[in-house]
Amino acid sequence: MKIRLGMIGGGPGSFIGAVHRKAAALDSKFDLVCGSFSSDPEKSKQTGRELQLDPGRVYGSYDEMIVSEAALDDENRMQAVAIVTPNHLHGGPAIMALENGFHVIIDKPMAFSLDEAGNMKVAVERSGLVFALTHTYAGYPMVKEARHLVSTGKIGTLRKIFVEYPQGWLTDFLEKDGQKQASWRTDPARSGAGGSVGDIGTHAAHLAEYVSGLKITHVCAQLNTMVKGRLLDDDAAALLRFENGVSGVLVATQIAAGEENNLKLRIYGDKGGLEWSHADPNTLLLKPADGPVQVYRTGSGYLSDAAANVTRLPAGHPEGYIEAFANIYSAFAVAVNDHSSGRYRSAADYDFPTADEGVRGMAFIETMIASSASDKKWTNFSV
Amino acid sequence: MKIRLGMIGGGPGSFIGAVHRKAAALDSKFDLVCGSFSSDPEKSKQTGRELQLDPGRVYGSYDEMIVSEAALDDENRMQAVAIVTPNHLHGGPAIMALENGFHVIIDKPMAFSLDEAGNMKVAVERSGLVFALTHTYAGYPMVKEARHLVSTGKIGTLRKIFVEYPQGWLTDFLEKDGQKQASWRTDPARSGAGGSVGDIGTHAAHLAEYVSGLKITHVCAQLNTMVKGRLLDDDAAALLRFENGVSGVLVATQIAAGEENNLKLRIYGDKGGLEWSHADPNTLLLKPADGPVQVYRTGSGYLSDAAANVTRLPAGHPEGYIEAFANIYSAFAVAVNDHSSGRYRSAADYDFPTADEGVRGMAFIETMIASSASDKKWTNFSV
Amino acid sequence: MKIRLGMIGGGPGSFIGAVHRKAAALDSKFDLVCGSFSSDPEKSKQTGRELQLDPGRVYGSYDEMIVSEAALDDENRMQAVAIVTPNHLHGGPAIMALENGFHVIIDKPMAFSLDEAGNMKVAVERSGLVFALTHTYAGYPMVKEARHLVSTGKIGTLRKIFVEYPQGWLTDFLEKDGQKQASWRTDPARSGAGGSVGDIGTHAAHLAEYVSGLKITHVCAQLNTMVKGRLLDDDAAALLRFENGVSGVLVATQIAAGEENNLKLRIYGDKGGLEWSHADPNTLLLKPADGPVQVYRTGSGYLSDAAANVTRLPAGHPEGYIEAFANIYSAFAVAVNDHSSGRYRSAADYDFPTADEGVRGMAFIETMIASSASDKKWTNFSV
Amino acid sequence: MKIRLGMIGGGPGSFIGAVHRKAAALDSKFDLVCGSFSSDPEKSKQTGRELQLDPGRVYGSYDEMIVSEAALDDENRMQAVAIVTPNHLHGGPAIMALENGFHVIIDKPMAFSLDEAGNMKVAVERSGLVFALTHTYAGYPMVKEARHLVSTGKIGTLRKIFVEYPQGWLTDFLEKDGQKQASWRTDPARSGAGGSVGDIGTHAAHLAEYVSGLKITHVCAQLNTMVKGRLLDDDAAALLRFENGVSGVLVATQIAAGEENNLKLRIYGDKGGLEWSHADPNTLLLKPADGPVQVYRTGSGYLSDAAANVTRLPAGHPEGYIEAFANIYSAFAVAVNDHSSGRYRSAADYDFPTADEGVRGMAFIETMIASSASDKKWTNFSV
Repeated sequence: MKIRLGMIGGGPGSFIGAVHRKAAALDSKFDLVCGSFSSDPEKSKQTGRELQLDPGRVYGSYDEMIVSEAALDDENRMQAVAIVTPNHLHGGPAIMALENGFHVIIDKPMAFSLDEAGNMKVAVERSGLVFALTHTYAGYPMVKEARHLVSTGKIGTLRKIFVEYPQGWLTDFLEKDGQKQASWRTDPARSGAGGSVGDIGTHAAHLAEYVSGLKITHVCAQLNTMVKGRLLDDDAAALLRFENGVSGVLVATQIAAGEENNLKLRIYGDKGGLEWSHADPNTLLLKPADGPVQVYRTGSGYLSDAAANVTRLPAGHPEGYIEAFANIYSAFAVAVNDHSSGRYRSAADYDFPTADEGVRGMAFIETMIASSASDKKWTNFSV
Repeated sequence: MKIRLGMIGGGPGSFIGAVHRKAAALDSKFDLVCGSFSSDPEKSKQTGRELQLDPGRVYGSYDEMIVSEAALDDENRMQAVAIVTPNHLHGGPAIMALENGFHVIIDKPMAFSLDEAGNMKVAVERSGLVFALTHTYAGYPMVKEARHLVSTGKIGTLRKIFVEYPQGWLTDFLEKDGQKQASWRTDPARSGAGGSVGDIGTHAAHLAEYVSGLKITHVCAQLNTMVKGRLLDDDAAALLRFENGVSGVLVATQIAAGEENNLKLRIYGDKGGLEWSHADPNTLLLKPADGPVQVYRTGSGYLSDAAANVTRLPAGHPEGYIEAFANIYSAFAVAVNDHSSGRYRSAADYDFPTADEGVRGMAFIETMIASSASDKKWTNFSV
Repeated sequence: MKIRLGMIGGGPGSFIGAVHRKAAALDSKFDLVCGSFSSDPEKSKQTGRELQLDPGRVYGSYDEMIVSEAALDDENRMQAVAIVTPNHLHGGPAIMALENGFHVIIDKPMAFSLDEAGNMKVAVERSGLVFALTHTYAGYPMVKEARHLVSTGKIGTLRKIFVEYPQGWLTDFLEKDGQKQASWRTDPARSGAGGSVGDIGTHAAHLAEYVSGLKITHVCAQLNTMVKGRLLDDDAAALLRFENGVSGVLVATQIAAGEENNLKLRIYGDKGGLEWSHADPNTLLLKPADGPVQVYRTGSGYLSDAAANVTRLPAGHPEGYIEAFANIYSAFAVAVNDHSSGRYRSAADYDFPTADEGVRGMAFIETMIASSASDKKWTNFSV
Repeated sequence: MKIRLGMIGGGPGSFIGAVHRKAAALDSKFDLVCGSFSSDPEKSKQTGRELQLDPGRVYGSYDEMIVSEAALDDENRMQAVAIVTPNHLHGGPAIMALENGFHVIIDKPMAFSLDEAGNMKVAVERSGLVFALTHTYAGYPMVKEARHLVSTGKIGTLRKIFVEYPQGWLTDFLEKDGQKQASWRTDPARSGAGGSVGDIGTHAAHLAEYVSGLKITHVCAQLNTMVKGRLLDDDAAALLRFENGVSGVLVATQIAAGEENNLKLRIYGDKGGLEWSHADPNTLLLKPADGPVQVYRTGSGYLSDAAANVTRLPAGHPEGYIEAFANIYSAFAVAVNDHSSGRYRSAADYDFPTADEGVRGMAFIETMIASSASDKKWTNFSV
C-alpha cells in the first residue's frame, strides 16, 4: 500500500510545496490524503480543491489537521506529514506531528533557530519515528556517485573543497513589492537569522560534507546585504577548514545577477578531482591527476550501486530536480515502511538527510553569522 | 477526479512502461487502476503486485482487460489506456480499446505498418475518442519555445534543417544474447520493417516537422545494417526536402558507439538559427544572424506561454525526460476531461501528437526504406 | 638560417594572406623577403610598406616577382613562395614558381578546376620541389591525435563518419555590396565551379579522409543556392560512402545563420567514437562503447607524439587557428630544409597536405556538383 | 623597422621564454637580435644556435649582454629586452637594462620582493623608458571586452567579484625530482616569498582589478602548503574587499588535481553579470539580470574597439594564449616606437600592464602572506 501523506504548507504561490507533491507522486509510493495548505482556511481549501482532495481532510490549521487525523482509524489516518512552510513554521508542526505519531519529512533549513532544531531532534528521538530533511541535492545520482568515488579512494587523500551556490534572483529588492518567495525568505521573523546563508548556504555546506564525508571544523565568513533595505544577508562567502587538514571555500549568494541556481562542488585529492554542477546534474567529472578527464553520466553501466539505485532511466535520458527530490522521498518511504513492519532502527541506515544533519545546518547558519560579525579570522564550528 | 488509467504492456524488463507510469503519476492527473502488463499472466501479476494494484484488475491479456473493464460501472471503469507494447502489439489493442470506448495514449511508432496505422486512424475517427502518441521530445518546454520562435518569425524565412539522433547502444550484437530491448527492436516480426529508422528516425522526423511547421516532401535515404547478423537497419541517414524549398539532413543511428541519446535539432532561417539538444534539454540557443547567441532557458520569465505552460520549476531547476513525457500526458488529460464534459472537438486543439502524426511517422519509415532501396535520388514522401 | 619566403596575394582586405604571414612568423622559421600582394601595383606597395619590406622586392605582378627573384643570387633569392590569391590565380603562379625553382605553399582549394590541379601536380613532380596545401584543420594537434587513435585501433573497425562545416556569414547577399571576401568566393570566374562546396566542403572532406585514413568512394549530393541572386552554391550536403563499407554524411553550408566556423568531425568504430570540434579545438572526445567519455586535451602528457610534436604549450594554454596553420608551415619548412640539404624524397614523408590531396579536393568539388545535378543516387568519386 | 629585441633567460627547458619569443614574432613587430639565455654560457649558446642568432650576440651573462649591446651603434643595438628569468633574476637585469637605455618587457611577478619592485619602478621613472609586465590574461580580447562592458555600465553598479585560478600541476612533489618549472617556482630563494600566490595569485588579482577597474582594499587569506616537503604555499584562497563596497573571493591553487590552467573571472553588478574563463577564452558570457545569457565571441562585429583592436581573425577562428601574449607585445611595440619618435609620455597611455601594476602585484603577495599568518580577519592592502 502507498503511504498516506499529509502536507502542511504548500498553498497558493508556494514553490516548494508543489515540488514535494510531485516528488511524492513520481514513484507512486505516496498518496496525498490531507493537507493544511495555508494559515488562511480559504486558501487551504482552494489548494485542496485543485488537488482533488476529500474536502473533509483539507484543514485550516496544522494543529487541527494533526488532531483530526490522529482521530482517524488506522486504515485511513495519514502516516506521514510533509512540512513545507516557511522556516518559522517548522518546529511547531514537526514536534506536534511527531508527538502524535506521524513521521515527518520537512524542508530545509530544519528550523527557525538552532535551539528549535535541538528541540525537534529531541522530539524525533523520543518518538522513534522517521524524520527526513529534504536537502535535494544529496538526492542526485551523480552526487551519490561522487560520494562513492571519494569514499572508495578514487581521488586519494582529500585536500581541497570548493562549493558555491550563486543565484541571481534577489538582485532586485523584490520583497518591497511583496513577491511571495522573496518576502518570507528575507524576513527575519519568518526565515530566521540567516538569509542567503540559511536558504542556500546550508545546501552548499551539506553537499560538501555529504560528498566528502568530512565535517567543517572552522569557518571564516563574510556576510553581506548588498540590496539596500533588505533585512537579511543576501550574499555570503567563507573560507573553510574541514577535518583532516582539508581546506575549502564556500560561496552562497543570491545577488549574482543572471545566475540561475548553479550549485557546484569541486573536491580535490592527491590523485584527482571531482566536479559536479547542478546546471548539468547528470554529469560528474572525474579528473585524474595524470589522465584525461572522465565524464561519468547518470544511467551508465559503469556506475556504482549508489548511483544506479536512484536512477530511473538509461543514460542520455535526463533526470532532474524532481527526480532528485523523489529519491529522498523514496528513501523516506523505505524507512516508513520498515517502521510499519518493525524493522526500522535508525535514520542512519537510510540515505536521506537526518535530524542530525538538520541541527548541523542550523549550527552552520549561526556559526557563519557569528564569524561574519567577528574580527577573529577563524570561528569554531561544532554542534 | 483523476483519470482512471489502464496499461497494456510495461511488465518486467520494460523500459518505456515505467516511464509512462511515472509520467502519468507526476502531475497527479491519473490513477493507474488496471493493467495487462505482459502476455505471460504470471509476469503481469508480478508487475501488478509491485504497483500495488487491485489483483482483480490485473489481467493476463489485453482483450480480457478491455472486455472486463468495459463491464465495470462508470465510476470504476478505466477511462483511458496506455499502450506500451512492442510495435506488433499496437494496432490490435488500440483498435479494440477505441471500439470499447476507451481513450488511448500509445507509444511510438504508432503501428507495425503504415496499413495498420491507417486502420487505427479510422478507428480513432469512428470513435470520436482521444488518441495521443508519445513523441516525447515534442513535450520539452524548449522544443515548444523553438516552435514558437519559428512560427512568430524570429529566425525569418526558413532555409535549412538538420536533425540528428545518434545512439550507441546497438554497437554490439546485443540481441544475440537476448537483451530484451534489443531483441524486439531488431526483430522484424515485432518491430516492423524499420529498425533505427522506426525506433528513433520517426522521433527525429517528427521533431523537425513539429518545430518547423513544415512537412518533408522528399527523402534520399541510405539505411545500413552495420552489425553483422542483425535483421533490421541500425543506421540511417537522409537528405531531405521540405515544403517551401527548405532542405535538410536527417541522421538516425544506433551504432554511434559512445553516444547516449543525443537527439539534436538545428533550424536556420534568413534572420537566425535555433539549436536544441536533448543532452541539455532546458537550453535553447537562439543565434541571430548578427548578434550574440542567446541562451534561452526553461523557467525563465522571458519565455512564451508555449514553454511556460509546460514548465513546473523556476529557471535552474532541471526538468528532464519524465517531465517532457508528463507534458504529453497532461495535454492528453485535458482532452480526456474535455471529452467527459462534452467539450472535446478535435485532437488538433491540443498540444499532443495525434493519429495523423502517427500515420505520417509510419509513412516516413516506409518511404525511407523505399528510398534506400532505390537508385533514384529522390523519393516522394506523402501520406 | 630562416627560409626566405615570398608571397603572392595577401594585399589590402585579404583575410588569409595575413594568416599565412602570421603562421610563417610564429615559429621564426621563415623570413618574408618579398611579395606581389596585389595585381594593383599601388596596393602591392602599400602592403609592402606596412610589412616593412625592402621596396625593391615589392612587385606589381607575380611574374615580375618570379623573374626578378630568380635573377637574385643564392643568398638572397626567395626560396619558397606562399600563394594566397583567389582560386583563379592559383595555377599560373604556382606552375611558374615551380618552373623557376621555388617551393610552393598554397591556399586551398588547390586550383580553379580539376584540370588545372592536374597540371600543377605535373609541375610539382617535374620540379622535384616541395609543394604544400594549407588545409589548416589538419594542422590541429587534436586532429592529429584523432588520426593516431583511429590508426592504432582505439575505436576499432570504423563504421560511420559525420563531418559538418556550418557557417553563417553568407546568410545575406553580401556580394551585392561588394564585400571583398564574399565577392570573389561567390564568383564563378574567380572561385571556380564550387561555392560552399569548394570553400569549406573541401576542408570537410579532407578532414574526414585525413583522420579516418579512408577514401570517399561515392557521394550523393544536394547543392543549393539559398540566397537569391547568388551565382554559386552556398549550401551543400551529401551522403557518403567510404572504403571498407564505412558510410558517412557531409554538410558544408554558409547560410547557417548565426554559426561561426564550426567544423566538426565525428567518427565511430565498433569499439568507440571520436569527436573533434573546431569551436573547442584543443579538446578531443574519446567515447568508448562501454565507459565514460574521455576528454583528451592538447598539451597533456598522455598524448601521442603525433599531437605532442605540434604543440607549443602546456595543457590549459589554448592554441588556435594560427598555431594550426603554423604547424603546416613548420612541416613545410622541414621539407624545404631537407630539400636544401639533399635529403628530400617525397611529400608523403611529411605531415602536410600534398598536391595529391589538392587534386583530390578538386575532384571532390566536381564530383559533388555532378552528383547534385544527377537523378542517380550515387556518383562515383575517384581521381 | 622592426624593434630589435634582446632576451635574458629562456634557455633550454624554459617554458615562458619560448612563449615570449613566439609572441614577439607573431605580428612581425620585433626581431630577436641577441640574448643571454642562461647563466650557463654553453646553454646560452645552444639556445642561440637553435634560434639561428648571430653567435657574436649570444652572451654568457646578462651584464655582458647589456654592456656589449650598449656599445653597438644605433642601427644595430638592441632597443628593448625581454626578461624571462626566474623571479630572483628580475630586478638586477631590469634595472641595469633601464640604466643603459633599453626598454624592458618582463614576466610576472615583477620582482623577487616588494622592495625590489619599488627599486625597479624608480629606475623606470628615472629612465623615462618603456616598461611592460606580461600579465598575459589582460591581453585576451574578451577580457578587454569585459572591462569595456563594466566601464560602460552594462552590468550596472558592481557588487561581487569571483576570481579563481585552479591548476593541478603541483599535485605531486615534482621539485623533489628536479622538474625545472617546479623547482624554481617552489624555491623561496628563486621565487620569492610566494608560491602559488605569486605564480598565479598575482594573475588572478590583476585580472579582477583590470576588468572591474576597482582596487582590492583588504584581504582575508588562507595559504596552505598541501604537499609535504614543499617550501612555499601551493594553495591560496582569500575573501576580498574592493573599493566601493564590492566584495569578492579569490582562489589560486596548484594542487587542484586534474585542473589545467583554469583562470576564471565572474563579476556581478545590479544589472547583470559577466563570466570569462581561460578554458574558453574567446567567449564572454553576459548575463543580464532579466534576459537570456548572451554569448559574446571574439571576432564578432558587435564587439567594442577594445576587443576588436586586439583580434586578428574573424569569429570562429580561435585565438589563444600566444595571441593574448602578443597583444601585450604589440602594445609595448607601439610605446617603444612612440618613444623613438618622441611621442611617448606615460605607460598609462597604452594598454599593457605597467610598473605600477607590478608593484601592486608584489604588494599583493606580501599582503596575502601577512594575512595568512594573522589571526585578524582583515588585512589592509595598499601600496
